[in-house]
Amino acid sequence: MNFYLALVHHPIRNKMGEIVTTSVTNLDIHDISRSCRTFGIKNYFLVTPLPLQKDLVHEILDHWKTDTANAFNPDRQDALHIARACDSVQDAVDEIAKIEGKRPLIAVTGANFAAFDGSTEDLKARANKEDRPVILLFGTGWGLHQKILDMAEFKLSPIVSSQSDGYNHLSVRSAVAIYLDRLFGK
Amino acid sequence: MNFYLALVHHPIRNKMGEIVTTSVTNLDIHDISRSCRTFGIKNYFLVTPLPLQKDLVHEILDHWKTDTANAFNPDRQDALHIARACDSVQDAVDEIAKIEGKRPLIAVTGANFAAFDGSTEDLKARANKEDRPVILLFGTGWGLHQKILDMAEFKLSPIVSSQSDGYNHLSVRSAVAIYLDRLFGK
Repeated sequence: MNFYLALVHHPIRNKMGEIVTTSVTNLDIHDISRSCRTFGIKNYFLVTPLPLQKDLVHEILDHWKTDTANAFNPDRQDALHIARACDSVQDAVDEIAKIEGKRPLIAVTGANFAAFDGSTEDLKARANKEDRPVILLFGTGWGLHQKILDMAEFKLSPIVSSQSDGYNHLSVRSAVAIYLDRLFGK
Repeated sequence: MNFYLALVHHPIRNKMGEIVTTSVTNLDIHDISRSCRTFGIKNYFLVTPLPLQKDLVHEILDHWKTDTANAFNPDRQDALHIARACDSVQDAVDEIAKIEGKRPLIAVTGANFAAFDGSTEDLKARANKEDRPVILLFGTGWGLHQKILDMAEFKLSPIVSSQSDGYNHLSVRSAVAIYLDRLFGK
């Protein structure tokens, strides 16, 4: 089955638990595209409803479509080829449904889930059993808003360490890399 | 055994294979500190011989030692507490030898090793057997220079995907996260 990934900039919780829209960052585009491309993710969606932020994403992605960029770093062009901007998580889900001919299983990630549905192995097993594509959702800011968590059919278990004293404050770029390695690393 | 990690900015290969010094970046300090702290790495060394670059690292780290920074984000302060700047890989090795009372096993990572010594499990087994701390070295730019590879006692196998068509161009931040999860994730 095909896996897709979305980095959500809205609706997001801020430090006070309020609903906010976070800013797109250049490095989230690059790092996460490279991780997605390495581990065979079909498309990487940057979710933001703000037109100027989508323009920024397009400007960065368009830069890397040029011959100059290709001559400088063809591997980077290759990775960024799978990235795109979209308005909402629902739009990403709809686009995948159109590509795949069936609704994707919506899986969410978070560092502070009190309850969750299972590991990356469990998620793959479920997607295989139901024969459906998967969209993995990652939050920015202080995490995915409850509205998005309510859409989820599968909550992935948080990343913890065998050496841990409880600290688990990874960057979203690191969390993406780890989940993709757990899913598709060998 | 204790694990340490170093991000090397010199000596590094550029695109043409020449020896260069890369720039320290703010995000490499933050993301890699957070990954190290999550997975129980004892210290994270930013290796650069350039005084102005070390000043920059100190300025960023000092900012996060303030009470204001602590009030804003205590978890970030906690993570950055383990980061420090040093002049060379040899200096990091010497500092670890002083802390631990024995020389660390030097392990290197890279995306393009034609030959390597084993997996993260093999590295842990060897460190346990020899009862030595470990320093994991990560390159920036186009990778660690041969001078550094020649210092290594252990080359880790590159990160590849079961879904791979051969593309493996992860950011160093992502590679650090994956190796630490493979070593100490549960």
